[in-house]
Amino acid sequence: MSAVFAASRPSAGGWLAIVGLGPGADELLTPQAAQALAQATDVFGYFPYVERVPQRPGLVRHASDNREELVRARQAIELAAAGRQVVVVSSGDPGVFAMASAVCEALDAGPLAWGEVDVRVLPGITAMLAAAARAGAPLGHDFCAINLSDNLKPWALIERRLRLAVEADFAIALYNPRSKARPEGFARALQVLREAGGGARLVLFARAVTTPDEQLKVVSLAEARPEMADMRTVVIVGSSQTRLIERPAGALLYTPRSAPGMPE
Amino acid sequence: MSAVFAASRPSAGGWLAIVGLGPGADELLTPQAAQALAQATDVFGYFPYVERVPQRPGLVRHASDNREELVRARQAIELAAAGRQVVVVSSGDPGVFAMASAVCEALDAGPLAWGEVDVRVLPGITAMLAAAARAGAPLGHDFCAINLSDNLKPWALIERRLRLAVEADFAIALYNPRSKARPEGFARALQVLREAGGGARLVLFARAVTTPDEQLKVVSLAEARPEMADMRTVVIVGSSQTRLIERPAGALLYTPRSAPGMPE
Repeated sequence: MSAVFAASRPSAGGWLAIVGLGPGADELLTPQAAQALAQATDVFGYFPYVERVPQRPGLVRHASDNREELVRARQAIELAAAGRQVVVVSSGDPGVFAMASAVCEALDAGPLAWGEVDVRVLPGITAMLAAAARAGAPLGHDFCAINLSDNLKPWALIERRLRLAVEADFAIALYNPRSKARPEGFARALQVLREAGGGARLVLFARAVTTPDEQLKVVSLAEARPEMADMRTVVIVGSSQTRLIERPAGALLYTPRSAPGMPE
Repeated sequence: MSAVFAASRPSAGGWLAIVGLGPGADELLTPQAAQALAQATDVFGYFPYVERVPQRPGLVRHASDNREELVRARQAIELAAAGRQVVVVSSGDPGVFAMASAVCEALDAGPLAWGEVDVRVLPGITAMLAAAARAGAPLGHDFCAINLSDNLKPWALIERRLRLAVEADFAIALYNPRSKARPEGFARALQVLREAGGGARLVLFARAVTTPDEQLKVVSLAEARPEMADMRTVVIVGSSQTRLIERPAGALLYTPRSAPGMPE
């Protein structure tokens, strides 16, 4: 099997870039992403993310709801195929539970002509990395990332993955822990995690990291409550080895690099 | 339990910032990281990463081997405690199998006075996100990240995590797949993955992503060979759902957002 990937530079004609805006702070937007935004004729995305791209002459902003991902992807591809320079924005990294997969799905099911469209994915700082950095290093040993949205998979599969992740003793980053549409899911997830691994693991609730609304909270799994998370929160459940250091200059939550019993 | 984390801005005196340089390309270094590098009086890190920080007047570069992580961490903390503005650099993100945990370990075991040192972790684009972006969106559904270095954990634990990750049907990012010191480990990892999940899963070998030496290769797990990876390679083993689209404008490797049988 062979696969020829595109060059990392855009072609001269139309193109589609799926761009990660990072967690919120401008200082975490990569220069590569900033350049694509500066060159774009059109930007597509969920309302609050498109809001983060300043209006300027020559830029058309297409904002839509977050249940419209495939429709948005198809519209963006159409415009790029017609010669426009199109950016689709995601918060964080576009490849982590975001628009890059939606665009690939649309391309996979689309007309033959879409095979000629120049498509690039430009990475960003995903929420779990920003949250981990603000708290210390809870993802410093093996970890996993699970999307708790059950729009996209059956709840039984989510529970199964949570149990296996505890069994593997991963730190566990939970994306989309809670929404108005399914307020009960996160409570069940916390219960599954306690059943699988007990209540002692440390849990980081990181809300709106790197924005003025940032809030960080660490509790034990026994103390964790569903209302500690909202739609702007990423949750990191530590492994059995994750530790909290209380320090005058600021606490640090971290997972040691070594498994127990190994030399440094 | 409560934890008070430090503000995200550095204090006026000495400080220690653990900084992610991203995968290689300058355009993927965040402005936040660039600013810390510009303000630093001292930079610590593994030789090739310190090389990426240009020499300038007023900057002392302290390069060391990658087996010296705790020693390096202690030296960096000492200088920050003495009032210097110190950066410890990691490739990618410092919180993923890199220096942030090493610094936390050193602080945890260090003298009481180190509790006053201003420590911040500045995130970066970690290798798996850069590799995933170049290839498409293989991490678009639930995934895990496993460090194959067995300096830090017993091989039996690595095998156990690989089997559980396949059972959970995660896409699996493998860091440090291969080194001269343990050439046989990665061959065993591939064998474990095949035993657990068969040979059909797609595997991305992404070497030196975003640098002039970049190489991307996709094969099935049945075709994967240990020599396809070296020390500069991150490997992403797809889930059972990961697909490759061959396109004239460039192939795309991606994992759909939805589990099988779910509506869009």
